[in-house]
Amino acid sequence: MKLKRMYSYLKADIDLIEKELKAATESESRLLEEASQHLLQAGGKRIRPVFVLLAAKFGDYNIQVIKQVAVALELIHMASLVHDDVIDDSELRRGQPTIKAKWDNKIAMYAGDYIFARSLEYITKIENPTAHKILSSTIVEVCIGEIEQIKDKYRFDQHYRDYLRRIKRKTALLIAVSCQLGAIAAGASANIHKKLFEFGYYVGLSYQITDDILDFTSTEKELGKPAGDDLLQGNITLPALFAMRTPAVKCVIEQVHEKTTKEEMTHIIKLIKETGAIEKSHQISQRYLQKALLALQTLPDRREKKSLIDIANYIGKRKY
Amino acid sequence: MKLKRMYSYLKADIDLIEKELKAATESESRLLEEASQHLLQAGGKRIRPVFVLLAAKFGDYNIQVIKQVAVALELIHMASLVHDDVIDDSELRRGQPTIKAKWDNKIAMYAGDYIFARSLEYITKIENPTAHKILSSTIVEVCIGEIEQIKDKYRFDQHYRDYLRRIKRKTALLIAVSCQLGAIAAGASANIHKKLFEFGYYVGLSYQITDDILDFTSTEKELGKPAGDDLLQGNITLPALFAMRTPAVKCVIEQVHEKTTKEEMTHIIKLIKETGAIEKSHQISQRYLQKALLALQTLPDRREKKSLIDIANYIGKRKY
Repeated sequence: MKLKRMYSYLKADIDLIEKELKAATESESRLLEEASQHLLQAGGKRIRPVFVLLAAKFGDYNIQVIKQVAVALELIHMASLVHDDVIDDSELRRGQPTIKAKWDNKIAMYAGDYIFARSLEYITKIENPTAHKILSSTIVEVCIGEIEQIKDKYRFDQHYRDYLRRIKRKTALLIAVSCQLGAIAAGASANIHKKLFEFGYYVGLSYQITDDILDFTSTEKELGKPAGDDLLQGNITLPALFAMRTPAVKCVIEQVHEKTTKEEMTHIIKLIKETGAIEKSHQISQRYLQKALLALQTLPDRREKKSLIDIANYIGKRKY
Repeated sequence: MKLKRMYSYLKADIDLIEKELKAATESESRLLEEASQHLLQAGGKRIRPVFVLLAAKFGDYNIQVIKQVAVALELIHMASLVHDDVIDDSELRRGQPTIKAKWDNKIAMYAGDYIFARSLEYITKIENPTAHKILSSTIVEVCIGEIEQIKDKYRFDQHYRDYLRRIKRKTALLIAVSCQLGAIAAGASANIHKKLFEFGYYVGLSYQITDDILDFTSTEKELGKPAGDDLLQGNITLPALFAMRTPAVKCVIEQVHEKTTKEEMTHIIKLIKETGAIEKSHQISQRYLQKALLALQTLPDRREKKSLIDIANYIGKRKY
């Protein structure tokens, strides 16, 4: 089943959010508008807004309120992508030139700042200080994660827990908070929004691990960037960490630097695959997926719960 | 009279805010903490916190509440400085190496993001959605101003209104909002916080114009960076705009580029001064100062009103 089919009953609301995202990136500054909308048009799964909407269905769902939260979460995600691309010197995202590639690093820095500021403007449209507080604390964590990611680059002696801490901040928290804030903004009870946070958190970990696996197993066409790009950029992900438990492979991986060629990378990817690191990573991803599903158990049985389960399972199996 | 003497009765509270700023820049990430505290220790007038506190005195002053607002405003200002230094390739700020100089542009980008996120965390400590909304909208405007500043660099055919729009967003709004939010967080009535906003807005314009004058009239030692640096960076400020009304000087200014030497700049500064542009700029600054003082007239007569008047006058006369 295709991802969008899993929540087809939300189509009208998701279309509305896409329109709101476009409106949110309009600006008096043509340069900012062009840069932001360039990123917006490159697409994306909009998985955070989907989680916001689904979570809100467990409370008193009012799309006029919930859309502000959904837009805010997607914008924060977008802003972090823009700054990530500066740090990673990424030329392509979703098969399109990144803002830093199409304009430059400086424009990308301020475009990221702008999208970020816009997201705050959206969240403050709901007059819920708790929601504001949760979001701002989450952003602090995301920023710490980002700077730690710079520090951990090409640091081959790092541990599994360093990786987990990074993907927690990089991905899991924002997905968890998407679920949590959707429920909170809809006035759902604490036992519901806590479980949804937990669900989002584990789904986020599973999602990021799958993403990190796909960076090694997908083709350049599927990824919209060369395979092995994470490693090339010095981002040591779970498959690389597992593969480095084989000393000979560790020795090869430790030689990776910015100028490693595509041919060399193809060889390294082959070596990594031969260690069984992909399967091991997949098992960890599955384990978090099970934890995510477990978190949903006590939630009331409704269509949206089924959608969350379907999406979680999809994330566990997705090929790109 | 020295600036600090004008509000010496606030000393204990200002010391508390300095401590809070230090606490706010502590981080699990040593790199982020070092970078943020490096900037903090370089000092600064902390004029935004001072305005927050003084404005709050027109309402129900509770330092435990107000300090959150004061810290938030100073942090936003700091974050914008960090990103500005990346854009302007500035090596020195307040006589100290900038974060981008001491570390690099990428660290500076995330350090700015982090300080920015921290400021949001502080403002959400006061459970006042109106305050959150005002601040986030202000940040959007500041970001637009920053990107417009990039676009306007070395654009010698710009107008007075382009300059005003830029300094409004760059400086005036954040000072206006410091005054406004101080009053709002202290529960002051609308007629009070609106007048304080107006006061801050005009003080901010006057302050920035004075700053832009000093960039031409101060020594390298006073500025902590070479004189004429704004123009060298392509930031066309009011004295340059006025000087360009003299065709021969316009012709010389239009030749300025990144590689213009210190000797050439000394000559250009001399030419600018000879046109009377400094005096004209000073007159405009004074005009805004008068508007600022006028905004205070209807406020109740109290010690803090006197302080605001003194600070405004100080800003009009300051030499560095």
